[in-house]
Amino acid sequence: MFVFSDVCFVSSKDDFPCMEKIASKVRHDIQLVTGNMPKACYAEVCGSQISLKNRLKSCYTVIYGTIGKSAIISALAEKRIINLDNVKGKREVYSFTVVKQSDIPGLEKPALIIAGSDKRGTIYGLFHISELLGVSPLVDWAGVLPAHKDRIVLTEKDNFVSKEPSVKYRGFFINDEWPAFGNWTMHNYGGFNAKMYEHVFELLLRMKGNYLWPAMWSARFSEDGPGLLNAELADEYGVIMGASHHEPCCRNGEEYKYLRGKDSIYGDAWNFRANREGITRFWEDGLKRSGKFESVITVGMRGEADTAILGKNATLKDNIDLLRDVLKTQNGLIKKYVNADLDKVPRMLALYKEVEPYFYGDKDTKGLMGDPELDGVTLMLCEDNHGHLRTVPTEEMRNHKGGYGMYFHFDYHGWPYSYEWANTNSLPEVKEQMCAAYEFGIRELWIVNVGDIFSNEFPLSYFLNLAYDYEKYSDLDYTTEQYTKEWADFQFAALKKSERNLIASVLTRYTKLARMRRTECIKPDTFHPVNFGESDMVLAEAEKIIADVEKLNRALKKRLIAGGGCDAVGAPGANGAWAVPESLYAGFYSQVYFPAAGTMNVLRLQLTSGKNRWYAEHSILAANPLCAKIRKYLEFDKSLVRELDTVDGGRWYAMGWSEHIGFQNWNEEDNQLPVEVKTAGANKPRIVAWLDGDSSVSIGQDWTRRILRLNAFRNPEVSEVYLNIATASALPFKFEIKTNKKWISFDTTKGEVSPKNLLQKVAVRINRKLLAKDGNKDETPYIGVFGVNESAPKTLVPIEVDVRPLCDASLPKGELPAGTYVQTCDYISIEAEHFVRNVAANGAAFKVLPGYGKTLSAIKAFPVTAWFPTAAQTENAPNAPKARASAENSSHAPFVEYAFALDEAGSMNFDFYLSPLNPVSKKNLLQFVAEVNGAKILKDVVPPTFAVGDDQQPWGDDIANNIRISTVTAQCKAGLNILRVYPVTPAFVLEKIVIHAENKPMPYSYLGAPETYRTPKN
Amino acid sequence: MFVFSDVCFVSSKDDFPCMEKIASKVRHDIQLVTGNMPKACYAEVCGSQISLKNRLKSCYTVIYGTIGKSAIISALAEKRIINLDNVKGKREVYSFTVVKQSDIPGLEKPALIIAGSDKRGTIYGLFHISELLGVSPLVDWAGVLPAHKDRIVLTEKDNFVSKEPSVKYRGFFINDEWPAFGNWTMHNYGGFNAKMYEHVFELLLRMKGNYLWPAMWSARFSEDGPGLLNAELADEYGVIMGASHHEPCCRNGEEYKYLRGKDSIYGDAWNFRANREGITRFWEDGLKRSGKFESVITVGMRGEADTAILGKNATLKDNIDLLRDVLKTQNGLIKKYVNADLDKVPRMLALYKEVEPYFYGDKDTKGLMGDPELDGVTLMLCEDNHGHLRTVPTEEMRNHKGGYGMYFHFDYHGWPYSYEWANTNSLPEVKEQMCAAYEFGIRELWIVNVGDIFSNEFPLSYFLNLAYDYEKYSDLDYTTEQYTKEWADFQFAALKKSERNLIASVLTRYTKLARMRRTECIKPDTFHPVNFGESDMVLAEAEKIIADVEKLNRALKKRLIAGGGCDAVGAPGANGAWAVPESLYAGFYSQVYFPAAGTMNVLRLQLTSGKNRWYAEHSILAANPLCAKIRKYLEFDKSLVRELDTVDGGRWYAMGWSEHIGFQNWNEEDNQLPVEVKTAGANKPRIVAWLDGDSSVSIGQDWTRRILRLNAFRNPEVSEVYLNIATASALPFKFEIKTNKKWISFDTTKGEVSPKNLLQKVAVRINRKLLAKDGNKDETPYIGVFGVNESAPKTLVPIEVDVRPLCDASLPKGELPAGTYVQTCDYISIEAEHFVRNVAANGAAFKVLPGYGKTLSAIKAFPVTAWFPTAAQTENAPNAPKARASAENSSHAPFVEYAFALDEAGSMNFDFYLSPLNPVSKKNLLQFVAEVNGAKILKDVVPPTFAVGDDQQPWGDDIANNIRISTVTAQCKAGLNILRVYPVTPAFVLEKIVIHAENKPMPYSYLGAPETYRTPKN
Repeated sequence: MFVFSDVCFVSSKDDFPCMEKIASKVRHDIQLVTGNMPKACYAEVCGSQISLKNRLKSCYTVIYGTIGKSAIISALAEKRIINLDNVKGKREVYSFTVVKQSDIPGLEKPALIIAGSDKRGTIYGLFHISELLGVSPLVDWAGVLPAHKDRIVLTEKDNFVSKEPSVKYRGFFINDEWPAFGNWTMHNYGGFNAKMYEHVFELLLRMKGNYLWPAMWSARFSEDGPGLLNAELADEYGVIMGASHHEPCCRNGEEYKYLRGKDSIYGDAWNFRANREGITRFWEDGLKRSGKFESVITVGMRGEADTAILGKNATLKDNIDLLRDVLKTQNGLIKKYVNADLDKVPRMLALYKEVEPYFYGDKDTKGLMGDPELDGVTLMLCEDNHGHLRTVPTEEMRNHKGGYGMYFHFDYHGWPYSYEWANTNSLPEVKEQMCAAYEFGIRELWIVNVGDIFSNEFPLSYFLNLAYDYEKYSDLDYTTEQYTKEWADFQFAALKKSERNLIASVLTRYTKLARMRRTECIKPDTFHPVNFGESDMVLAEAEKIIADVEKLNRALKKRLIAGGGCDAVGAPGANGAWAVPESLYAGFYSQVYFPAAGTMNVLRLQLTSGKNRWYAEHSILAANPLCAKIRKYLEFDKSLVRELDTVDGGRWYAMGWSEHIGFQNWNEEDNQLPVEVKTAGANKPRIVAWLDGDSSVSIGQDWTRRILRLNAFRNPEVSEVYLNIATASALPFKFEIKTNKKWISFDTTKGEVSPKNLLQKVAVRINRKLLAKDGNKDETPYIGVFGVNESAPKTLVPIEVDVRPLCDASLPKGELPAGTYVQTCDYISIEAEHFVRNVAANGAAFKVLPGYGKTLSAIKAFPVTAWFPTAAQTENAPNAPKARASAENSSHAPFVEYAFALDEAGSMNFDFYLSPLNPVSKKNLLQFVAEVNGAKILKDVVPPTFAVGDDQQPWGDDIANNIRISTVTAQCKAGLNILRVYPVTPAFVLEKIVIHAENKPMPYSYLGAPETYRTPKN
Repeated sequence: MFVFSDVCFVSSKDDFPCMEKIASKVRHDIQLVTGNMPKACYAEVCGSQISLKNRLKSCYTVIYGTIGKSAIISALAEKRIINLDNVKGKREVYSFTVVKQSDIPGLEKPALIIAGSDKRGTIYGLFHISELLGVSPLVDWAGVLPAHKDRIVLTEKDNFVSKEPSVKYRGFFINDEWPAFGNWTMHNYGGFNAKMYEHVFELLLRMKGNYLWPAMWSARFSEDGPGLLNAELADEYGVIMGASHHEPCCRNGEEYKYLRGKDSIYGDAWNFRANREGITRFWEDGLKRSGKFESVITVGMRGEADTAILGKNATLKDNIDLLRDVLKTQNGLIKKYVNADLDKVPRMLALYKEVEPYFYGDKDTKGLMGDPELDGVTLMLCEDNHGHLRTVPTEEMRNHKGGYGMYFHFDYHGWPYSYEWANTNSLPEVKEQMCAAYEFGIRELWIVNVGDIFSNEFPLSYFLNLAYDYEKYSDLDYTTEQYTKEWADFQFAALKKSERNLIASVLTRYTKLARMRRTECIKPDTFHPVNFGESDMVLAEAEKIIADVEKLNRALKKRLIAGGGCDAVGAPGANGAWAVPESLYAGFYSQVYFPAAGTMNVLRLQLTSGKNRWYAEHSILAANPLCAKIRKYLEFDKSLVRELDTVDGGRWYAMGWSEHIGFQNWNEEDNQLPVEVKTAGANKPRIVAWLDGDSSVSIGQDWTRRILRLNAFRNPEVSEVYLNIATASALPFKFEIKTNKKWISFDTTKGEVSPKNLLQKVAVRINRKLLAKDGNKDETPYIGVFGVNESAPKTLVPIEVDVRPLCDASLPKGELPAGTYVQTCDYISIEAEHFVRNVAANGAAFKVLPGYGKTLSAIKAFPVTAWFPTAAQTENAPNAPKARASAENSSHAPFVEYAFALDEAGSMNFDFYLSPLNPVSKKNLLQFVAEVNGAKILKDVVPPTFAVGDDQQPWGDDIANNIRISTVTAQCKAGLNILRVYPVTPAFVLEKIVIHAENKPMPYSYLGAPETYRTPKN
């Protein structure tokens, strides 16, 4: 039984020099939790003889070291005190062993022995202590403090040997460093230097990452330390450095700019044909300088600043030959200056933009695939900058020696929109795509662009957890919601349970909303201000989240105490309140409050702006008071950014400075800041009337008598609907409401709208019992809003009410499966997970992805790498309907089945709301099969010309909208119809299906119509 | 010598009863002018013996009467005192003869003898006195009072015989009577009754019209008098009544609605097949009732409320047969109840909407053209409701017995926009189309929809003048500007000369601007707020007009005197000021102030709104103060309407009530009232910079360094350009301006924008002498706007200056004709009248239409009815380039020639800005030929599917925009190019030509780019 009190850390002097620093961080963690700082000393080891300083004998000792380096570990192993069979020779593995005092001569208390298989193995082992003590990986970076514990006990039950990480290189990329990260580090550390990287490295290692791309837009990692200090520090800590895709041979992109020149030894042209000697020398000196550090060395060559290397007129073969030549040269240099055994040198080639075709070649020109120069080189793929994989390795490519990497984004600066401010990444989406990457064999290297790091720590945690322990975190049953709950619980253990629960709930809810459309590209017209009540629904949720975080914030602020900022957090005081040190508050502020309140505030700002415009366009005076709200939300946005600069003495200074409102494009020039729109209204009394959820308006004037249609009462679950009567003039307007039916009633039948009462919401109610008794069913139910103003005597808004019985009423009992969608209005809307059957085939089946996507969830077929080319075949007609050929072999396909019932037969559109994923192979195919009443339709989701990239449509719109709508048209019957959906290609993720008459387009909405009525479960 | 003092009016009792009323109006006019009321008495005539009352002998006598009715005229003629040879038997002709006292026994002073050929001849003759005295036709209707004259003298030189009016039936249609005309007449006269029509008839007759379509939306002319009073009064005055196109047999459209029913003798279906008897009876009774009055009887039949008569499934033949049957029935009834000699009964069939195809038939079905039932029936055509003729009679159709009529619009309620408020008609456009109508043989009947009459009196004067004396008013040399000057001079003779001149100028200028786009359909984005300085230019002109009418208004108001309202206006008082009686003020207010100030205020409102939006979209804070302006202009609009209700005791009550702001469609529901847009700006100091006339903006931030391009200095006539620097943030921003060239200077090089100085306009100047001396011409001239704020150190707006020499500099001297357009920027813009040659062919030639169109003027080939099908032929290649065949025979075509010089050779677009006229024949052809450097291109302006009507595009957009842009693409050379333009079909009216590279679209503007530089005249 090992107790964390009176602890001493013991190592031998021969270990990696960083170990003392890491151990010191862990000792400090222990102090944070227990209040007592463990001692530290060296053991002297002579052969298998270990001598401990006397004064330590009465301590609990933590003995740690790296196999092959640490004499003390060797001695303990030799004496069979620890068993290293499962550690030795492994990658980044450690054993964690509590031993009795009797096992080690001279000890009076049990010891904890951490033996790492290599440098990072020992480091992870040491940080495992912190983890066990409840110390967050964000403790240093974000000041997230642990809860105080008086006594922590380990027993032999805690002994274990860690696993080899699932992905070999796991890390993040600091990018887009201005204006946020850059100003932050200038302000807090005076530059992109080792003082700052010390914290970044610690963050990475505590999160069990091992790989980093440093800031690179204006920074030069190998110069800013100052000098090589950054690189040396990384090497010391075992942080493997990489560089982004266009920075070969340990050289930063910015470096050549500083070194080139007419008289430079490196020449004056970034051109391997014209300046072979200079460029080779440039690489050579880079490798000489930095080759000694642990790195994944980028190979290959691209043009300057993200461009192609040869001009437009070069052929594919010219380019491939040049690239092969470059690789050969670089491999030669690496052999010479880094390691003669190339297999020992991690190398990486990014298959990015124009490099991808060089790799694949075309039918006339062989690409670099299988080229000996690429043997052992990791091929790094990149998603579409917006979180969706592109071409992934086919089965035959997967055994490439060197494996594959993935460059993923939690932050992006570019087209069609940038997302750089507060975190808008949603775990279900990250999980789905990174799991797919893993399943497709991308396991060598995962790197994620985290922008300024700030506020992306939460998704980064998940990303690195998944990379470290794929089996655990990829499990569909271990939902991301559960992960979020545990994450919040762990980070904020020092807060009350109710607070932690609320934090988890906020994180889940706000990221869902923020991922519907990223903050930066929400516009006033994104969500519809009226149709389907969309804007009201989203606004209510955003307001609720803000209220929740404001409540948390108030509670924490009340308990805020100044102080060291690194004190552990004690137990609740007498009044039941936990104290909140400034640093912990900063942790809450950065991880929860700022991103949730910030993103949700921009959302409500844009929603309010949208409503303001819609009102103003219709001359509705209710537009005007919304201007004050817009101003308030804008002011709140500013105040958040200002406040962030000051939290915890400036810990997050400048981190909120990125553009984030209406950031439509990569450049600020097109930023559309919200405006306030006011209307003066008409010169005479005028109303505008509309029904909740339906943007058809009527002003009821002579000549313009548009009829409103109330059909919501067809839904048996609806018994109240709101009619909006708004003034469109500063002159008051009295109205009276009448109906020809006794079963229709109102909460008010008379009223006046005026500048004092801009908008009157009238509840219209149905009494179904009275309806059943209505003796005059042929008469159209009718509501009239009459003007009773003398000056507007002719105003009359007519509303026709539709209460036709549902079609299921006329169907034989039991014909409809429970869960059948029965038409109650012009359309039917189905959440994908609400199928009535889910049929597996040969082990493949659809599964639900909880929390995924824009509305409820999504479904996807597993295994995710499978193709089902025969899905479109029917049993009797084995020829698939004609579509682009998908030739991969596979078995029969699984399917899901939906039941729906229509009022009338007709040609119906089925709008399939799909996640905007990209085709997984060069074949550029994305297909599924819709089967309507037995007739199969093979659907191509993307056109043959589909491509990802700047100005590419439909890709750009789809990823901005975070949905791809794929429409299939089929003839349907009146009454019951059956829809089956089969996967054909991978990357088919279905969120929603909307069914409507082909000739009746759906009214605009961002989320698509909300789910409609379905028959109750039996 | 006849002097208007001590005058007595003499007639014989046997004339038309109305003559005494008309004479009394004229006597009252004389009193207005001279202050003395002439006496009136009857002469007794016995055979050729005339006895005058003794007491009259010492008067100047006005003797008047109608030939064939008036005994006194017969007696005078018999005695050869007057010669009626040129009067007798003529239509609406009068002789005007001053005779010596000695000619008529018993007179002591000379007499004036007016002898009319018929009722209206005498009436026009009597009103000719008023005209000679300077009394406006609007004297009664609009209270436009004459100037006082002490002594007016006529001599034998004034003797003349009037001409027969050019057009037989000339009049107007009161339409769209709610909310304006209807409320006006209810308020002032209590209904659509004879009290009101008394004034309308007088207005018509004083304007030498003779034909009227009464108000008809809710009014029933034959019932509202009360009873038949309206019709009887019209008949008494010789006002020929008509009815709109769907009201046959003297029945108003509304009547059947009141008379139909299950038990009605007229049946209960407006269906000549199902209810032949009832409908026939309905017509029969209409003719019995009203056939005795002088009318143009509408024949034919349409469905109720402007619809087709048979259902969709009826064939063309069914419809034609039915219509023939209807016509036969109606002709039979007319013979029976009106006149057995059908030729004596003016009848009219409207070829409107679906009736047109029934007339023409198609290749399989003969239409009604040439049908005996139509013999002698006037075929009434209608323009497109927006002032553009449609199909007009071909040469062979022109001799149809019964002739043709034209229904024209100064007011319209319908698609794509309504124009019903203040007058927006422009005389050059009216002149061009109505002259074309006349030339195409439409001379029997002209009727114009004047809406509420109010404020359309001015264009109506021109319309009726042209109809009465086509030769005089159609003369191109007698410009509409000159007409306007004379009109204003005549109407407002009682005002100062300078005031009359200003009124004429205002009328010319405001109608030009208002016709660019009618008030109702101007939107905030109609004119571009920046491009080409369009909005500023239009706004300045609108403001100038408002300032001018405000000045007039103030001056008149100062001199306003209450009083009888019908007193003549005296000479200037001692202080040089003329008094302005209330009535005269109301005349000024209605004819000048209200329409000019009203329309120009809406224009400036929309322009300001457009600028407000553009600023706000770019987060430019200068948007915000514009909101107050928008409010002010809206308030001004309201106050104008309110004030109009009260002018001269309510004379114009309700006449301003029509919708007029953003009246986009026929119904109010889509009215877009202007809104106010405010922006809060960015959260950090930010500027937006742009050059006058160019909406490219730069904010100069890192990442977004967009270069502005200043090329205006290439134009040798430009030496100063404004650079706009606006703040897009509430935080102040200091800037500094630098350049690398000595020949560029600024009026300021440092400044600050902030909430206190929202927008700084910096003058950039060029010194061409220093430029000539610039020794470093290869260096790009460059201007930089640098931020000097600490917090925005990186801001830099780069501006590149283009001062490349013009291409004419390198051409041999004398190669360019004077007036050559030399390229100074991306495009060349040519006003059509600025050709370098105008070449006639066989008597046909282009002529300039002064003041026509949206910018300077237009050109059109004369004779206007000519086709030039061979225009596309070249001398050596007689085959025309392929286009739709235009088979009419004609001679060679005239052409105009333009010279232009380009920097570079290339494929250029020639955008021909044409008046949006319609093809003149069923061939649906509108063509011209563009010849570029000798290569002819035959251009179809409209597609074969072109049609006029609701929802028809491109027609709808073209008429809203009041332009049709037709683009021809041709290869051009560097240096001098020659463009020739030939007419092919009629209705080719060219306003402007813009030439630009095919691959370089023009920036948006409503008027098209303003004219560019051309070489000076030698």
